Amino acid sequence: MASRVEIHYCTQCRWLLRSAWMAQELLTTFEDEIGELTLRPGTGGIFEVHADGRRVWSRKEQGRFPDITELKQVVRDVIAPDRSLGHIDRASRSENSGGREKKDRSE
Amino acid sequence: MASRVEIHYCTQCRWLLRSAWMAQELLTTFEDEIGELTLRPGTGGIFEVHADGRRVWSRKEQGRFPDITELKQVVRDVIAPDRSLGHIDRASRSENSGGREKKDRSE
Repeated sequence: MASRVEIHYCTQCRWLLRSAWMAQELLTTFEDEIGELTLRPGTGGIFEVHADGRRVWSRKEQGRFPDITELKQVVRDVIAPDRSLGHIDRASRSENSGGREKKDRSE
Repeated sequence: MASRVEIHYCTQCRWLLRSAWMAQELLTTFEDEIGELTLRPGTGGIFEVHADGRRVWSRKEQGRFPDITELKQVVRDVIAPDRSLGHIDRASRSENSGGREKKDRSE
């Protein structure tokens, strides 16, 4: 319960709601790993997620928002690298290998 | 944008959802005052809110959850004491003086 996750979002863009939703998803999935999840209002189109001080998502850099399974994976890679996310991981593998499994089913 | 608010909630009691809702209410109302709002999972029935290091609510001590207008007032008292919360403050005054205004209308 010691990891720290931060979601830095643009208030002008009205991204509080999606950020708060992502916060709840992360706190639920990583109930035993996350010690603090901080919502940090910002400006200028910022949307960044940090896990234990490492930036795991930047909307500016990646050009888009993560989908929620993707976000869980990049956060997991930092705060609980040995942990499997179960069907989320399987769906990604299937997708990467050209499987027919639909992304929607992975959530 | 420099104040720090923290909501410490019991995961066993499943208080994440209400805490995340309160977080969104506070971040919306105090958009210019709050620099960080942290959700902190805990255990043992904890529900506490801190504003700039001062405890403004303790469910153990007060014996109940705050209603949302009450929470905004106690947070305001610490992070923006000069700021009026408009109809919320008026409704409280009316209530305290035995006025007929209903609390529900203050939200």
